[in-house]
Amino acid sequence: MSTASRPAGPRRAAPGLDERTARMALSGVVESGEVEVARLVDDLGAVEMWRRVTDGQLGAPMAGRAQRLDLRGLLADAGQLGIRFVMPGDDEWPESLGDLRRAESVQRRGGQPFGLWLRGPARLDEICRRSVAVVGSRASTGYGTSASTDLAADLADRGVTVLSGGAYGIDAAAHRGALAAGGRTVAVLAGGADVPYPKGNEALLDRLAADHLIISELPPGAAPTRMRFLARNRLIAALSIGVVVVEAALRSGARNTANWAVGLGRVLMAVPGPVHSALSVGPHLLIREGQATLVAGAADVLELISPVGEELVPIQRGEPRVTDGFSPIRLAVFEALSARRWRTGGEIALTAGVPLRRALAELTALESAGLVDGSVDGWRLRGVPGGGSAAATGSVRSR
Amino acid sequence: MSTASRPAGPRRAAPGLDERTARMALSGVVESGEVEVARLVDDLGAVEMWRRVTDGQLGAPMAGRAQRLDLRGLLADAGQLGIRFVMPGDDEWPESLGDLRRAESVQRRGGQPFGLWLRGPARLDEICRRSVAVVGSRASTGYGTSASTDLAADLADRGVTVLSGGAYGIDAAAHRGALAAGGRTVAVLAGGADVPYPKGNEALLDRLAADHLIISELPPGAAPTRMRFLARNRLIAALSIGVVVVEAALRSGARNTANWAVGLGRVLMAVPGPVHSALSVGPHLLIREGQATLVAGAADVLELISPVGEELVPIQRGEPRVTDGFSPIRLAVFEALSARRWRTGGEIALTAGVPLRRALAELTALESAGLVDGSVDGWRLRGVPGGGSAAATGSVRSR
Repeated sequence: MSTASRPAGPRRAAPGLDERTARMALSGVVESGEVEVARLVDDLGAVEMWRRVTDGQLGAPMAGRAQRLDLRGLLADAGQLGIRFVMPGDDEWPESLGDLRRAESVQRRGGQPFGLWLRGPARLDEICRRSVAVVGSRASTGYGTSASTDLAADLADRGVTVLSGGAYGIDAAAHRGALAAGGRTVAVLAGGADVPYPKGNEALLDRLAADHLIISELPPGAAPTRMRFLARNRLIAALSIGVVVVEAALRSGARNTANWAVGLGRVLMAVPGPVHSALSVGPHLLIREGQATLVAGAADVLELISPVGEELVPIQRGEPRVTDGFSPIRLAVFEALSARRWRTGGEIALTAGVPLRRALAELTALESAGLVDGSVDGWRLRGVPGGGSAAATGSVRSR
Repeated sequence: MSTASRPAGPRRAAPGLDERTARMALSGVVESGEVEVARLVDDLGAVEMWRRVTDGQLGAPMAGRAQRLDLRGLLADAGQLGIRFVMPGDDEWPESLGDLRRAESVQRRGGQPFGLWLRGPARLDEICRRSVAVVGSRASTGYGTSASTDLAADLADRGVTVLSGGAYGIDAAAHRGALAAGGRTVAVLAGGADVPYPKGNEALLDRLAADHLIISELPPGAAPTRMRFLARNRLIAALSIGVVVVEAALRSGARNTANWAVGLGRVLMAVPGPVHSALSVGPHLLIREGQATLVAGAADVLELISPVGEELVPIQRGEPRVTDGFSPIRLAVFEALSARRWRTGGEIALTAGVPLRRALAELTALESAGLVDGSVDGWRLRGVPGGGSAAATGSVRSR
């Protein structure tokens, strides 16, 4: 079902629309991830943007597409398919997508989507609260498939939502792992939320739609294209807390998603594999270059995406403290920080008595956990909301 | 052949010996890696130390061992076996072993050896110039064995000396790989250089002795013990530029060697493997914790152990420059440094326009290459011998 194939005429979208309808209309007319258009919509609103589109200010081809858009038909289809549209400002809209407004574009795609078309019972904001993307090659090896399945199953079992695309290989293995564990798993597609691609994954995607969620920034019926896959990757990264690359060739879509993860400040992780495997070249390069952290399983992932300490402490005694579960080295580094003064990595390493490289790794982890600020002046304890700095609470240091 | 089993009597070691003979005698009486004794020998010399040992100042048991030592018999055996003794100050003694004088002890072993007993035609100083240790589990998997063989063969093929122990598994696979490539490979043993351990590797070790080198700090005939293995590991690390861990369980001898590599400032590397394999847990942990850099093959190792640029530039045009072969990111980081002023990692990252973590990785690489100094104040270009700083040469920046 293509949105462009219906005859134009009386059901044509009117130039004057409300904000929501204008965003739906834009999603059917503007190519996914057109970063300049996304910025204009952020600044001017979709109603004004839609006026400019229909006026031909963005060129005749786009005006033509707007003319041909059968908006009422689209809405009727969406209703029939159980596909709803959420947009910035809605309760269900996750704040994390706003990060796309600040991120630089990757391969000329970018920007916050006008809205998202959702198919399935899960709430978008809830799935983002604790979600990890598992991405990788379509042509995964047996090793990668089992690594992806096991990882997703263990994450789902620990209450993490698994996010992935809808492709064969790593994507499908991740969804299957999460489903097998009885957990939640979500697909972000490069075509309409009702368009199974590849066709062979139709049953799997239908199951996600029935019990969980399928997400797309394209309206129902839209076909996936190469450009839409690149734009889709930014959504996978933005909707997750961390991205795990399981198997990927040197150049691959997963590397593109990894770039988005870095650009959006998400935790980038990669699963190693046999050095003889061409599909482990991507993960190994990400790890070797320091972009991704090596993860061998769900425990490693949870340690990286959780607020520091949360996943490490089996038993909490008394009042929980921010340093509960810190390793001795992390504690030493943390205690070497000041809330009032920026200290360089070298100073901190010296005070903590740990090698500089290790100190920097700990500082980065503490920064990811929101406990430390890094700047051109060095590192500093971040102020704790509603009560001075983390260190100023005293109990952190004294116990 | 045990050095303690000969009858004491007329061939007993005399209390007054020259420095060389005293060091040989100490190597047969003092346990390997007794860090306090090593320091005393560094400070007082071996002649005075030997006097104290025979006087009983280090306890009756050691004095007893000294009494029973058949030094003349030992020298005769060594001569017959073609085993020579080299000591600090000898032409063949590598400076790198001096690093052991400054390194902290690991598991209560440490210190510079009194000397080394060598069996084989290779020169000790030459093998250290470009040597990489390949270490790992005795009970390696098929994957680890082939990874070790391939890595050692490729390194040997590029002119790197392979260093390892004499065990089954990764050690033997490394030696075999280097031999297959027609390269140089050296074993450092925990018993005498003439004592094949394990017995099953006797033919392999004999081949190393015939064509290359076997090294031990223990005199001929000495049996390997658990403590001697721990002491031996420090020699493997100290004699190499970098250490590669191929397969290792969570607790293993290879982890001990890895600790030595870190303590001695050697480049620590680890080969990843399947996440399901218990023997990849060790390498993965080293990588994940930032102690080791992931290496998937010889090219990765060469890039890390070589002076910056050396392995990266296939064709040099005109006068070689220190920045030849730098990646654009490394060049940007390098150019953000000052020779006169310490700059923090944050400042450098900002100037270079690269993420902080990446900037720190590049700075660490540049520091390892001797181009940059790191301190508590930040980072600074290191002065180039005989002509100001690297950046002050002008051509570095302008071309």
